[in-house]
Amino acid sequence: MREVRVLKGHGTGNDFVLLPDLDGEVELTDAMVAALCDRRFGIGGNGVLRVVRSSATDDPSATGAEFFMDYRNADGSSAQMCGNGIRVFARFLVEEGLASPEGMDIATRGGVRHVRRLPTGEYAVGMGQARGVDAVASVMVGNRSYPAIGVHVPNPHAVVFVTSVSAAGPLDRAPEVSPEHLFPEGVNVEFVERIAPGHVRMRVHERGVGETLSCGTGACAVAWAVRRQGDDAMRIRVDVPGGTLHVEERDGELELIGPAVIVADGTLEADWAAAWI
Amino acid sequence: MREVRVLKGHGTGNDFVLLPDLDGEVELTDAMVAALCDRRFGIGGNGVLRVVRSSATDDPSATGAEFFMDYRNADGSSAQMCGNGIRVFARFLVEEGLASPEGMDIATRGGVRHVRRLPTGEYAVGMGQARGVDAVASVMVGNRSYPAIGVHVPNPHAVVFVTSVSAAGPLDRAPEVSPEHLFPEGVNVEFVERIAPGHVRMRVHERGVGETLSCGTGACAVAWAVRRQGDDAMRIRVDVPGGTLHVEERDGELELIGPAVIVADGTLEADWAAAWI
Repeated sequence: MREVRVLKGHGTGNDFVLLPDLDGEVELTDAMVAALCDRRFGIGGNGVLRVVRSSATDDPSATGAEFFMDYRNADGSSAQMCGNGIRVFARFLVEEGLASPEGMDIATRGGVRHVRRLPTGEYAVGMGQARGVDAVASVMVGNRSYPAIGVHVPNPHAVVFVTSVSAAGPLDRAPEVSPEHLFPEGVNVEFVERIAPGHVRMRVHERGVGETLSCGTGACAVAWAVRRQGDDAMRIRVDVPGGTLHVEERDGELELIGPAVIVADGTLEADWAAAWI
Repeated sequence: MREVRVLKGHGTGNDFVLLPDLDGEVELTDAMVAALCDRRFGIGGNGVLRVVRSSATDDPSATGAEFFMDYRNADGSSAQMCGNGIRVFARFLVEEGLASPEGMDIATRGGVRHVRRLPTGEYAVGMGQARGVDAVASVMVGNRSYPAIGVHVPNPHAVVFVTSVSAAGPLDRAPEVSPEHLFPEGVNVEFVERIAPGHVRMRVHERGVGETLSCGTGACAVAWAVRRQGDDAMRIRVDVPGGTLHVEERDGELELIGPAVIVADGTLEADWAAAWI
């Protein structure tokens, strides 16, 4: 069996197994993704980022850019886009000499995204436009009810401003959001605390997952809402439990800026991989 | 900075970062161990197994064998021995051509241990003798009280026989064990269900950790207790949540047998490692 290269990386604590498969030789089954993402029996990660040339895969989204981000959740299901994952993906391409740090397009199931490396070493990804929900939602935290701002990035978010994010308490269970018909497919909930002009702190409950260390689209939703609440900074700093992100808005277009870390680079042991590949 | 090699492996779900450092060039700080073991920001593991020649370290336990298992818990603290970790450690030595699969001695903080590879590919490690506690302990599970057999391997265990291990309920909190003076340093608690002669299933609460997928000394404690409860099988199969172990007893000496899996082999990224090494 040939060697299978894998890397581990993260963006603000959202962690991934990278699987370089430029020529589309790996058939990525659900079982293999789950095995790779298993934190005890495998490598461990929130998902797998398979790096494949668009020309080497049949995925209909693999178009408009040289490389396609084949992103899978830890259970093997396909995912659209990930603002933290795509930065790690882009860093991999840059470090391999496969893309220019000045800027590159990457095809994803959420469309083609533009990514560039900043002089700080951080990576910035264009996240498109946010679209507000034309109604006020309500989120229950403990036995208090807060008004929430609904926004699609394009996945649904409900943004709640609080005096202190720690007061939101444990977020292991999904907060109740009403009226339900506003978010028929469920909703991610962000709790936001203002630190200073242009600077907030947030915690997030991701639908179907629970509280997470970071959420790229959540940070964009928060920055968008912060600006609509009277903060006119073009660049909003968003502290998440896993680190710091920045969101810039120009002509309605959001750009998510943050670290892209690669931890280790290696190969799967043949014995272990033989069960999956 | 030179390249730092790391591997990830596990024994019945007890997982480790292996750090080959044969010539003792790495100063393994608590912060570096914690960074390596962090499941989101690092590699992820229950602990680090540094592989070092006994001649290349000042550790007073590094004597009596060519290689020393410098085993650290995920918080960086030194640990004595680990029946699951030492099998992975031994497999590494064998695969590197540094030890014979027929058998090798390995120095640990719990003394020199003998390990050998079996024809099945499993690894067997001599765990020494168990010493029973000369009193009956009592363990509370929910609102029921069960008698428990106390045994040192040499760390303390309380073994409770139950009709069904699932009936023990969630083990996220430490079961109450009395009388307290029997185990002044705390105690690991095993719940054991008989499946067939020579075959049991167990769940374990490790002191200071919580419920775990596996515990090598726990499996030894259980097998020892099973034999003292009338099962005369020389070899006891112990199913743990993370897989299957076997324990053989000869002249009072226990041998722990189980899988040793290496998942991946690679190097730390220089940028990431620069913060720690």
